[in-house]
Amino acid sequence: MHRTKVKVAEDALDANTTIANANRADFDRDEVSVVNFMSAPGAGKTTLLERALTGLEARVGVLEGDVQGSADADRLSALHLPVVQLNTDSGFGGECHLDANMVRSALADLPLADLDLLVIENVGNLVCPAEFKVGEDARVMVSAVTEGEDKPLKYPLMFRTCELVLINKVDLLEHLDFDLDRFLYHLDAVHPGVEHMLVSAKSGEGVDGFRDWLERIAGRAPAAA
Amino acid sequence: MHRTKVKVAEDALDANTTIANANRADFDRDEVSVVNFMSAPGAGKTTLLERALTGLEARVGVLEGDVQGSADADRLSALHLPVVQLNTDSGFGGECHLDANMVRSALADLPLADLDLLVIENVGNLVCPAEFKVGEDARVMVSAVTEGEDKPLKYPLMFRTCELVLINKVDLLEHLDFDLDRFLYHLDAVHPGVEHMLVSAKSGEGVDGFRDWLERIAGRAPAAA
Repeated sequence: MHRTKVKVAEDALDANTTIANANRADFDRDEVSVVNFMSAPGAGKTTLLERALTGLEARVGVLEGDVQGSADADRLSALHLPVVQLNTDSGFGGECHLDANMVRSALADLPLADLDLLVIENVGNLVCPAEFKVGEDARVMVSAVTEGEDKPLKYPLMFRTCELVLINKVDLLEHLDFDLDRFLYHLDAVHPGVEHMLVSAKSGEGVDGFRDWLERIAGRAPAAA
Repeated sequence: MHRTKVKVAEDALDANTTIANANRADFDRDEVSVVNFMSAPGAGKTTLLERALTGLEARVGVLEGDVQGSADADRLSALHLPVVQLNTDSGFGGECHLDANMVRSALADLPLADLDLLVIENVGNLVCPAEFKVGEDARVMVSAVTEGEDKPLKYPLMFRTCELVLINKVDLLEHLDFDLDRFLYHLDAVHPGVEHMLVSAKSGEGVDGFRDWLERIAGRAPAAA
């Protein structure tokens, strides 16, 4: 007699993994690389994208996650990219993160087959977005120097599960008490060896490096055309 | 025949309300006023408390909420106040907010009968903390000018449910593109007439006003001694 044993999925995170895998399969079918882009509120994600996606040598689309409103999507639409806004406020008071199912609900509105790279700008939050995979290839997080040196220690999962940390607003360093070495020491404690870049969305410093990084990720899935 | 109809509590938020009411009853019994103190990560809550609680004319205690670590509690303990650290990382990957039950679990460690004011420093997050009442008298939120003018529109529930908005880091205004009038216009759109103060945790500007505000709140429940 042949027996099959199925482990029952235990909770919401298991369901999320199932759907993230389905998203992943769709991305693979269309050869799209996907970046999950995360930070605290006001760390500068959208302004960094405005700069880095301008002149990017890849066909890129954006999925914008916000509790409410479409200001960021409107800004990025000005770059003449396909942008889809996903609002989470149908949850109780507003969900504080994107999960795989929310992302899945938006995929039909994106021209995946015509993209090399999809950037998913998550809800501004350093906790829950890190807990929900959405089918991405890589995670990039932005930590602004205005937020202080202690953030890796206070939000370790976020810093531990990303492939790249952008340290933003370095144009303000001279006006702050921020100790960069101390931040990097804390970062190394929670995620040894993780790649990081010093950037300023305002001045443009370091943004070329981030653009190159995105192009390398996008190149993982060469354009079908 | 006498019939009693009981409406069944529907979800986690109903259970939270039940426990928040129990906390409220305990606070009333001991004549403690309670402030729920909220912001995005790195907005400057702890530094503002260090300044405002120094010289405060009331017996104050602090409940520190963090996903992980006790750095902020350690800082505030230096003020010789009763401080209890509450870590939320026993949840999956870490809970992104305090709820009434978490606060309740810490009350036994606080000398409530000897306090006029309890400040609950919530987890750094602009979404979920606003959804969970913990039994507080008032909510204060901090929005740093480094976070941009659009935050009231993107996180409306947080701005709508607080009694006081501290606009922090105004010492940096001259180095930013932040348009204060535009921020206040957005704030008024989501919470007409809400009290606000311009403050700098770094320079101390405006902190006296916040200290006075806390003393007024604490005065609602006169010291039993």
